[in-house]
Amino acid sequence: MGNLLGTDQVTQIGIVVKDIEKSRKAWAAMLGVSEPDIIVTAGYDQAQTEYHGERSDATAKLCFFHLGQVAIELIEPDGKPSSWQDHLDQFGESVQHIAFVVPSMKEARRNLAEAGMETIQTGEYTGGRYAYLETLKTLGVQVELLEND
Amino acid sequence: MGNLLGTDQVTQIGIVVKDIEKSRKAWAAMLGVSEPDIIVTAGYDQAQTEYHGERSDATAKLCFFHLGQVAIELIEPDGKPSSWQDHLDQFGESVQHIAFVVPSMKEARRNLAEAGMETIQTGEYTGGRYAYLETLKTLGVQVELLEND
Repeated sequence: MGNLLGTDQVTQIGIVVKDIEKSRKAWAAMLGVSEPDIIVTAGYDQAQTEYHGERSDATAKLCFFHLGQVAIELIEPDGKPSSWQDHLDQFGESVQHIAFVVPSMKEARRNLAEAGMETIQTGEYTGGRYAYLETLKTLGVQVELLEND
Repeated sequence: MGNLLGTDQVTQIGIVVKDIEKSRKAWAAMLGVSEPDIIVTAGYDQAQTEYHGERSDATAKLCFFHLGQVAIELIEPDGKPSSWQDHLDQFGESVQHIAFVVPSMKEARRNLAEAGMETIQTGEYTGGRYAYLETLKTLGVQVELLEND
């Protein structure tokens, strides 16, 4: 049995936070870097976010600290139903996902589904798409797949 | 103000789990690799573990999956007082820390303490030492410092 993802390179550590400006400041101070821009994810028209198979209007504020191969992604959800909000409500500020850039989203999702790991949330971003997988109970962390065009 | 750690390279993602053999199997299956050996951390005589400033006899079972720059570290604590057990009790199976290999443990701990981030747990391992910092509330994840001889 091969690698179900088609890669073994972790590229992101995603942390859900309550106040992204406050968390961004703390990370920037620790790393001795300037504060990265905050971006807001697109609404449904562009992002086509689905959460547990249903349309979601959820958005999130994001910012990234690039640390070699891995980026720390800070995520402040907007309160609407999403994997981000659900994780924040259940566990407080904490690591919500680790991400892998996969060669084929379709293949990786099919392989993981066959192994019992279903998709929780999907969405589009400029130049690609993501999927969060239900891997918390088996792997101890949610896996995010990223596919770039 | 410079980088308080002396590095910006994340080298580990540490996940606390209830049953390391079960979690190891799931990770190995997803990554298409053989199951890595499980090691048990040393007892107090060697590890000199301190948790909140007091001697701790806690140990943990560990195993590592190397994914490029970053290793996934699975950690099964033994029930005795430790940051590992505390995290597992509070949050269930989840990411407990991210680690940075620092050039100087002493300097990094001093810098972080001055910024309000105190040390929770320390210990020795063959060839080096570690410290967990109280950064969950400010950074959304516990930071571990590793210093190798």
